[in-house]
Formats: sequence, structure tokens, C-alpha cells
Amino acid sequence: MALIYLINSWPVEEWTTAMRRQAPDLDIRTWPDAGRLEDITYAMAWLPPANVLKSLPNLKLIFSLGAGVDAILKDPTLPDDVPLARIAEPDLTMRMSEYVVLQVLLHHRQQRRHDENQRHRRWEPFPERSASAVSVGVMGLGVLGTDAAQKLKLLGFKVAGWSRSRKSIPGIDCFAGPQEFDSFLERTDILVCLLPHTPETTGIINRDLIAKLSRKGPLGAPVIINAGRGKQQVEGDILAALDSGALHAASLDVFATEPLPESSPFWLHPKVTVTPHAAADSDPEMITAYVLRQIRRHQQGLSVENIVDRKRGY
Amino acid sequence: MALIYLINSWPVEEWTTAMRRQAPDLDIRTWPDAGRLEDITYAMAWLPPANVLKSLPNLKLIFSLGAGVDAILKDPTLPDDVPLARIAEPDLTMRMSEYVVLQVLLHHRQQRRHDENQRHRRWEPFPERSASAVSVGVMGLGVLGTDAAQKLKLLGFKVAGWSRSRKSIPGIDCFAGPQEFDSFLERTDILVCLLPHTPETTGIINRDLIAKLSRKGPLGAPVIINAGRGKQQVEGDILAALDSGALHAASLDVFATEPLPESSPFWLHPKVTVTPHAAADSDPEMITAYVLRQIRRHQQGLSVENIVDRKRGY
Repeated sequence: MALIYLINSWPVEEWTTAMRRQAPDLDIRTWPDAGRLEDITYAMAWLPPANVLKSLPNLKLIFSLGAGVDAILKDPTLPDDVPLARIAEPDLTMRMSEYVVLQVLLHHRQQRRHDENQRHRRWEPFPERSASAVSVGVMGLGVLGTDAAQKLKLLGFKVAGWSRSRKSIPGIDCFAGPQEFDSFLERTDILVCLLPHTPETTGIINRDLIAKLSRKGPLGAPVIINAGRGKQQVEGDILAALDSGALHAASLDVFATEPLPESSPFWLHPKVTVTPHAAADSDPEMITAYVLRQIRRHQQGLSVENIVDRKRGY
Repeated sequence: MALIYLINSWPVEEWTTAMRRQAPDLDIRTWPDAGRLEDITYAMAWLPPANVLKSLPNLKLIFSLGAGVDAILKDPTLPDDVPLARIAEPDLTMRMSEYVVLQVLLHHRQQRRHDENQRHRRWEPFPERSASAVSVGVMGLGVLGTDAAQKLKLLGFKVAGWSRSRKSIPGIDCFAGPQEFDSFLERTDILVCLLPHTPETTGIINRDLIAKLSRKGPLGAPVIINAGRGKQQVEGDILAALDSGALHAASLDVFATEPLPESSPFWLHPKVTVTPHAAADSDPEMITAYVLRQIRRHQQGLSVENIVDRKRGY
């Protein structure tokens, strides 16, 4: 029994260090110095190199290190018969809610207007409405969306959520399916996207969606916050809407191309807050502990949590 | 029976408009066209002109419009025998917690570092710690401080509070009195001041306090957020600490002199977020409803809520 790290674009050392500390007896391998491939039963993967996973004959379980599994599911060499587990770590959920609450409050309290006044040494209080006058809409009501929605509710916002299948969350107006999408958008002043990336959600944040959002909120025009996936946003439509005034502002943590190219107009757009796909960073220590709990469950014959439904895509 | 508005530096019209809509039968007066002074039983005051309150022979109750009563208590002509009521309106509490949560998250998530990277078109993720690694300390555990502390706790921060008399709040480490002040400061990475302004709290945020704050948090040096009163901060000490690195950053909503003079170094300081005493703006509609509820209690012979203890100062 061995565990292999297949990590691309992150330094693997902080992951193996955490694992060695937490499970000193575990046989840990890294790619490409993987040793006997027959030994390997568990893989921890982030953008793994193609063909590697299918070359492991005794692989029992793959962990995808991050909330989204769209990249790994696109790999045509991903073995069909090995379960793929998502990380649903409370720490990752907490971090995502921090990001969502921060960005919603930043727009609700017009911090950027205060920032601009500060740069001009202007003491300029302006009328502000309370959170109870603002409708926030969360697209995606999985673990992340549900937690963010509940925290926004506690801060006093009117909160609704939209998901593919019907959810029931106390205090949150839950909309479901394509037939209720327009009603959800029409009551939404601040839209938060926490959807998984699937064929159905590709390009979902587009000109049509923006046109349907509420214009009755205190800011006059709607705000978009995307911490889902960049491919969910039509970036030209967002830019056009910001410039025409159809959108008040946007906070974007994800982009169609990452890193965001230097030539992107988002960088210096006065209405856009750019963060570098950092909304919910994975903490190696916390995720290592989560993975070890799941490996123990697997070894005890218990079901592993958060196995991906490959047809659904998350 | 009449109610008079004694409001300085705010437009009185939005207050009288709200009251006329909510209580059309009430006899409403404004200063200086106050009519027969003997008629006046209730006063709604914000920085009232000196000598006016004591010239009202039948005054039964004074409402101070805002959370802080320090200004009105300093008025030597304030009648001794007329009860002074503070506004403790849930809406005001919610707004203050919005401000506190926004500013704490802004520093915790290093939004200003992201802002700086964005200005330079730099895609630069950096390691971020979770809220559970950060100790927030709230000075002042009245209605405002308690609510803010509880919301920060729900976001995952380690939260402590400090107050003059011992409080007990589930999930919050409560410190009390001068003898526990140093222990409270030593465990605090992000300090939030929501204290009332009294002789004891004047100048409390000074060089000594800053030196005692924790340097073990993820940001290396502590952060100060002041939404109490400007006279509580020694501004030269804060500036010196920011410049020496003894403080990581500060969010200041209040200042020794307001409006903040154009010459203040706070305006353009890269580590300071200035807002114009706007943390918890008073919404005339909500406060009018609160005052009417209290007037009804008074007329029914019930006790009016949140009467100021003049000796204590809040």
C-alpha cells in the first residue's frame, strides 16, 4: 500500500511534508520517481500528468485536491473504475465563505467609493442602506454555497439560492432548475457564483443573465461575484455591462485564462476587483488530515465521503 | 405634548419627514422655531445647541440620536433630572457588525495586497491562513461589541472581548477590568475598538497598548480597527507604529478631529483605511420607529430602555 502525489503547478513538498508529519508510517511516493507502480493504492491529484493514473494497476481511490473536479474529469485517461473523491473540508468551506462575505460587504458598504474619497482626501459620508434592503443570490447550493448563504443571512441580507435540484435551507429562498432561474435572477441585487463547472454552467454568466438581474437594489445596478470557474463567465459581456452601467461592479477570482493575461482589461478596470484564484486556497495540513480520515474509512470498509458523480460532473 | 428636534450638522428634514409619516398626530417642532416651550415633553438631540435643553420646563425624556452619548454628556447645560436615552436599535447594531466584519476580513484576507497586485497587473497568489489561526479582540462588549464578536466567531476567528465589568458570551473569551487588559492585548492579532467614550477610554489606543498586542498572528504585526471614538486614539502613536512596522495596518472610522483635516497623514497612508464616521450610520426611519416605541412605553408608564447611567458615562 502506497500513496502517490500527482501535483502539477503547486510545490509538492509542502504536501508531502504535511503527510509525513501526520502519517509517518505511510509509504509516500511522488511522480515521476514512483517506484513499483503495483504498490500504489491511493493518489492525491491536482492537474495530474496525462496517462499516469491509468498506469497504476492497483489504484483504489483518487483524491482531487481542490473543490472543483472539472479539470481531472476532462482527462480522457482517467480510469473509469476508480472512485474519485472531492475534498469537502470544513476549512475550505470557511475560507470560501470568508471571501464571499468580504466581497459582498465590500460592495454593499461601497468600500471602493470610500477608497476613492480617501485618495482625494475627501470626507464624504453618503447615505447607506442596511443589509436588509439588499437581495443576495447564491448560484450553487452545495456545501460551499449553503455555508456562504447562511452567513450572509446572519449579516442581515435577504438571501436566495439557486441549484439544479431543489434544496431546503432555513431562512434561504431556494430556487431550482432552469424554470426558476429567471425568477431567481430578477430578485437578485448581488449575484454570487459558486457553481461547479459542467457543460451546463459554461458561459452561464453572460449578457442575458446580466440583463435579468434586479435594478431595484440600493446600488442601482447589480453586482457579480464569481468564485466558481472562469469558463462560467463570458468576459466580453461582463466588460460591456460594466462600461454601459448595466453592472455596478464585479469581484472576480477566476478567469477564462489563468493566470489572467497582462493584456486583460479587467486588471485596471475601476469597477473590478481581481484576485488570483485565491478565494479558497487549499491548506495542505487541513486537507492532509481530511484525506487521512477518508483513507482510514476506506481501509475499514466504510464508504468514502464526497465521491464524485461523474455523469453529473461534481 | 410635543416633540422637538435639536439636530446639529445633519439635515433635520429627513428626520421630521420620517416622524410625520410614522406618527401623523404627533406635535413636532424644530429649533429655533419651537413655539411655546412649555408644550415640549420629548427631545431628539444630536449635538444640540447649548442652553436649549435646560430652557424646556416640561421636558420628560431626551433621546440621543446615535450610539455614543459622550458629546451630549459634556454639555454643562444638560438638565440633571431629565432621563437621557441611548438608541440601541437592531439596525444600528447590524450596520456596525457589517463594518467590523468587513474590515477584519479586509485585513485577514490581505485585500489591500491583492489591490496592490491588481494595480500592477500581477497574478500573485500568496499563502493565506484560515480564520482559525487569527485572534480578534473586541474592546467593549455592549450590544454592538457582543454582536460583532459573535459574528466574527461564526466566521471562524478566535474571538475574545474586554469590558469594564465581566460579561459571559458563549464562544467568546471574556476579559474584564484593568487587571486583565494586558492578557487580552497579548493574545490579540486584530484589535477592534467599540468602547464608549469616557474619561477612562480617552487615549486608550496609544503606544503602550500597541506594544502589548500579539506579534504571533499570520500577518506578523497587529491590526487596529477603531469604530469607537476618535478621542480614544493617540494618532501620532498609531502613525509612528505603522511606520516602524509595529502595526501592520489600521482601519479608522473615527478621528480626534472630524471631518479629518486635509493635512492629516492618515489620508494617503498606504496602511490606513479611512472612512468618514460611517461605520454605523443612523437610518432615520428605523430610529424614528425605535423612538416611537419608547415614547409609547413612557406614556404607558413602562420603563424606557437604554437610559444612560451618567456616572458611568454610557
